[in-house]
Amino acid sequence: MLKIQITGTGFHAPEKIETAGELAPRLGVSEEWASGVGVAQRRIAEQTMPQMAAIAAREALGNGPPPDLLINASLTPVQLIPDSSVFILDELGYDDIPGYSIHATCLSFLVALNNAASLIHSGAYKRILIVSSEIGSVSRDFGQPESAMLIGDGAAAAVVEPAMEGSDSAWLGFAMQTWPEGAFFTEIRGAGTRRHPNGPLACRSDNLFQMEGAKVFRLSLQKIPPMFSEFLNRQGIGVDDIDLFIPHQASGHGMKTYERLGFPAAKIVNIINEYGNCIAASLPMALDRALKAQRIKRGDLVMFFGMGAGMSTATALMRW
Amino acid sequence: MLKIQITGTGFHAPEKIETAGELAPRLGVSEEWASGVGVAQRRIAEQTMPQMAAIAAREALGNGPPPDLLINASLTPVQLIPDSSVFILDELGYDDIPGYSIHATCLSFLVALNNAASLIHSGAYKRILIVSSEIGSVSRDFGQPESAMLIGDGAAAAVVEPAMEGSDSAWLGFAMQTWPEGAFFTEIRGAGTRRHPNGPLACRSDNLFQMEGAKVFRLSLQKIPPMFSEFLNRQGIGVDDIDLFIPHQASGHGMKTYERLGFPAAKIVNIINEYGNCIAASLPMALDRALKAQRIKRGDLVMFFGMGAGMSTATALMRW
Repeated sequence: MLKIQITGTGFHAPEKIETAGELAPRLGVSEEWASGVGVAQRRIAEQTMPQMAAIAAREALGNGPPPDLLINASLTPVQLIPDSSVFILDELGYDDIPGYSIHATCLSFLVALNNAASLIHSGAYKRILIVSSEIGSVSRDFGQPESAMLIGDGAAAAVVEPAMEGSDSAWLGFAMQTWPEGAFFTEIRGAGTRRHPNGPLACRSDNLFQMEGAKVFRLSLQKIPPMFSEFLNRQGIGVDDIDLFIPHQASGHGMKTYERLGFPAAKIVNIINEYGNCIAASLPMALDRALKAQRIKRGDLVMFFGMGAGMSTATALMRW
Repeated sequence: MLKIQITGTGFHAPEKIETAGELAPRLGVSEEWASGVGVAQRRIAEQTMPQMAAIAAREALGNGPPPDLLINASLTPVQLIPDSSVFILDELGYDDIPGYSIHATCLSFLVALNNAASLIHSGAYKRILIVSSEIGSVSRDFGQPESAMLIGDGAAAAVVEPAMEGSDSAWLGFAMQTWPEGAFFTEIRGAGTRRHPNGPLACRSDNLFQMEGAKVFRLSLQKIPPMFSEFLNRQGIGVDDIDLFIPHQASGHGMKTYERLGFPAAKIVNIINEYGNCIAASLPMALDRALKAQRIKRGDLVMFFGMGAGMSTATALMRW
């Protein structure tokens, strides 16, 4: 148990809305098929990734002092070098605050939170700002409606600090597993050494998001339930003890499967229909929406959960 | 002070050697100019990034059990999604061990080590494998001899565990700062949203390493000395107390400036002439070479130091 607290969150959804009905003809699918995916609309970025990040970050920081560390937990890079934390720091006007990136695809925010919990616990830092800002829309493959229909743009941020005196707030546990058998189920295969962008095989689809949805779903059904049960057992709790379940917003279909883990719909934070899959930003966006809707109070047991390319899953439990 | 220990390191340098004399005509420079850069030779990868990583990782793990976490601390991605930790896990034959990446350009290994120290201290993990594997040679801009002459390929790994009982081994301190004013001094500007590879402005140089050496050098001279003094003051030690100084191997010129901080050449681990700048792998490669040459014994005060794109600098102190 690590005595830490999330002292602020921030949220940014671009103003521009793109509905399933608008997107359907561009993907060559019917409006009926499009609405069956479970994403009625998504936002489309009109600002840069660091600008979006900074809006969410400023809200999370509130009137408090600057952070002593920025962790960028986004999958969308601004460019390959330097890492995107630098551009977010620049946008925020910071001049000597350290920044780096944690990349665990859709789980980046959750992994960053687990790192931040230990970094706060050890005294390495006192006020860590984690930001996820994603512009996935530029990487949509319009020849692959199944994935292109899911993706949206957005940003969110959180500030992590030591728990206040007398507070029960704590990071109670975290578990992650990676199964490389799913490495190619969800990918953007360009930008690296495998298919170097200047190499002879490089092509446009290398830079677009590719997903084999059925394989992802099959591997999820096989891996998630035992991992989830083991996590609960180790924490000595049951599903009913959890006050709110905040999962990565992968797909409309995926959101429904969480009910199979035993959560009533009312305990699941579900924003996929309104914002789509905003990659690593989805989870902190859902957290912020839940807080703003007063669905979390101090002392609540909050569970975070995600599945990401790799494939990896992660579960975390927090006393709010 | 975090009671952790590096219990194993591993090293891999590809067999293929490319000398300054061989490279000079390809860069349109004289052999004399080439040798003045301070990189007499470098290795050129003949295996993939994960294969190189796995060789170094296996050596670091030795006969011990598998790690309970893999952190990929490399700048070279295999592809954009999933992050490269997945491909390294696959190469090592692991099926459920969690993996993710930390990206802080040339400082990635050092930042990963600082994260690992807190993760071990908090009890989150017991045996963390950090791997840096770099194939920078594919991103060399042959029209920019100044940077192309520096880069080499290589990999190294380290295993971090709680300090053994009775051992004085500890992570004594870490300090990092990022100055976004240097964001464009060292870059690979492609692969992200700024110049999306499928966008109208994309060009080959977007995917090549670009450096404004003089600006990097000027900012370094301005920022490093005060940061370094402050770090020593906070630790309550002087330069003479440090037994070995292991810096990122940025350039031949850069290595010489470390003597200005007060270190005699004999206390500086310098492998730049033999291996070039292997990006994030340089620092752990230098650590491994120092250990193999028996330049470190238990109880020694070892200082790590690096400067990376961003620009960022980081300093760390360890009781070995």
